Amino acid sequence: MSLDAQSLGIERILILGSGLMGTSIALALKEQDLDVWLEDIDDEVVAVAIARGAGTQYETSMGEPDLVIVAVPPSAVALAVVSALDRFPSATVTDVASIKELPTKAVASSSQVDAKKRYIGSHPMAGREFTGAFSAKHDLFIDRTWVIMESPDASELALQRVEWLIAACGAVSLTSNPQDHDRAVALTSHAPQLLASIMASQLRGVDPDDLQISGQGLRDVTRLAASDADLWVDIVSGNAQQIRPVLESIHTDLGSLVSALERLSLEEDSDEAQVVRGTMVDGNEGHSVLPDKHGGAANSYGLVTVVVDDKPGELARLFATAGGAEVNLEDVRIEHTLGRLTATVELAVNFESVSMFEEVLAKEGWRVQREAQE
Amino acid sequence: MSLDAQSLGIERILILGSGLMGTSIALALKEQDLDVWLEDIDDEVVAVAIARGAGTQYETSMGEPDLVIVAVPPSAVALAVVSALDRFPSATVTDVASIKELPTKAVASSSQVDAKKRYIGSHPMAGREFTGAFSAKHDLFIDRTWVIMESPDASELALQRVEWLIAACGAVSLTSNPQDHDRAVALTSHAPQLLASIMASQLRGVDPDDLQISGQGLRDVTRLAASDADLWVDIVSGNAQQIRPVLESIHTDLGSLVSALERLSLEEDSDEAQVVRGTMVDGNEGHSVLPDKHGGAANSYGLVTVVVDDKPGELARLFATAGGAEVNLEDVRIEHTLGRLTATVELAVNFESVSMFEEVLAKEGWRVQREAQE
Repeated sequence: MSLDAQSLGIERILILGSGLMGTSIALALKEQDLDVWLEDIDDEVVAVAIARGAGTQYETSMGEPDLVIVAVPPSAVALAVVSALDRFPSATVTDVASIKELPTKAVASSSQVDAKKRYIGSHPMAGREFTGAFSAKHDLFIDRTWVIMESPDASELALQRVEWLIAACGAVSLTSNPQDHDRAVALTSHAPQLLASIMASQLRGVDPDDLQISGQGLRDVTRLAASDADLWVDIVSGNAQQIRPVLESIHTDLGSLVSALERLSLEEDSDEAQVVRGTMVDGNEGHSVLPDKHGGAANSYGLVTVVVDDKPGELARLFATAGGAEVNLEDVRIEHTLGRLTATVELAVNFESVSMFEEVLAKEGWRVQREAQE
Repeated sequence: MSLDAQSLGIERILILGSGLMGTSIALALKEQDLDVWLEDIDDEVVAVAIARGAGTQYETSMGEPDLVIVAVPPSAVALAVVSALDRFPSATVTDVASIKELPTKAVASSSQVDAKKRYIGSHPMAGREFTGAFSAKHDLFIDRTWVIMESPDASELALQRVEWLIAACGAVSLTSNPQDHDRAVALTSHAPQLLASIMASQLRGVDPDDLQISGQGLRDVTRLAASDADLWVDIVSGNAQQIRPVLESIHTDLGSLVSALERLSLEEDSDEAQVVRGTMVDGNEGHSVLPDKHGGAANSYGLVTVVVDDKPGELARLFATAGGAEVNLEDVRIEHTLGRLTATVELAVNFESVSMFEEVLAKEGWRVQREAQE
């Protein structure tokens, strides 16, 4: 982004709330040539943030900030945003709560005359199992998505200031609206959190020997269960109506599975086995639509097809070529054709590697089958 | 382990099944001076394993192996183990299926006269989302737990050979019995797999924009959903009666939560909010009993207590001391005492660092409060 703080009139930033989010934002802004002021209802909390070098304690005598970032728990965010718009009548105000309808509606019904001009809600998609100023990290937002709310009544300056903040924290902005946002996070954040907690809660009171027999899978599924209870009661309370249909659907699917397990045996193709298969196949499909870290689909592989002689040693030679080309083979499928002396080998590689790999293979004498060009 | 292959009479190993497990074991054994033979009902599957250098195709003319490792899908394992004991009347036989009652019972009811002397079931706690010889890795078992079944009728030689195998693959053995094992994996592996699949299946057909608003948490919870459907229908079918009560308990907990969400609002301390809080707190507790990768409890921190002057800058100076001592602070709690000019600061650090950190603090003049010695 070409806009700098100075040209946007940002010299003094006030961060309300010195928890994980507020303090991490403050630490991320340290390299900017700005005044970062901190305020928290709890003196000890703000003391930890200040001790970590996040900024200075805000006093009313310091004057009005240009940008206010409200980083308080979801149950307090609506009131805190409206109050900030009221206390600082020229400031741009954003909040970073994980639910967005609540503060947006509060501002819409605020008596503050230009509230909707100066407020733009946002939500950085970053967090940790730990909370508090102590767990804050200056690089918490690097390369993370930071959702910014479509705010038709907001001024261009307010929008540019919030976009500047997101870029200054190293995050990538993504536009949504409060309704879509809250529906999306119910599915992608709140339901997974509650499921992880319920799964982990089954481990209470279990024989420690049983837990020794556990692998990485259980750790992955239950990692979120370490999340802060107070924060999550707040989040779930603020978005209950969006979370409910997601959990209801999971509850129904789980009920069908439990019923099938009652009569399931090793007999293949029974109705009960089909329910289990459906659970797994639907899960495969759902997993495949999830974007990977870089924004692409998780399984975005390309297929390279090679015709090989159907004799010993040919596959090993093919793998050696792939190894020499430094191509990461993700999967391999071999198809023999009845009565022929050749086999067709499909090699799954990253999309980006397809052309290069096909060239290397062709150069080394392999018969590469290319897709018919349109 | 001091025992080597030679002294245990292990020169020739036959691995039945060239999938992920069988081929990974073969690759792990490559550095041993042994013959590793491979057999699979599917010629193409074994061809991939051989092409990867995992071993040579087994032919009856090669003679009898000393150790047979059955690495076939759970639905086939009982028959394959009994058949192996029959085909190779002097060999030690183990299997690596993820369910253990099924093969154990099959051997117990086998007509083979010394079957129980030569069979010891086992289960390496390692896997990947991918399956097949192609995904096999020589280091799949390094530092992983490999469960070995208590087998009162097995010979000492059979036990030592299976223990040798586990050590040769770089894994750590852990003893259990078939009933406890199957109950434990229902809770720690099979239920998490099915929950992950059900969560992921909710993502099907969702607007891709909604999925852009997703963080690491969703990826963690749904990672297992990429698992192979065929394999898991087999596993779940073979352990349905142990999985059912776990999923029933989760279904009940989820039902209570869904009911609470219907009437949940931001009002604190409502009955509904208490249900959500219970879900989170129980999840916290369950998560805390889960062993970490190194076998200890996940939250095995020690507290170092320091009395500091209640004035600006002291906390920052304390954090600087911790940084200089290269201690990883996990949490901090500050307690002020009314009317005193000092505060008590509790610093949570790894158990192993407690003594060292206390010494460093004392040396630099901090007032460390030590626990009264017994």
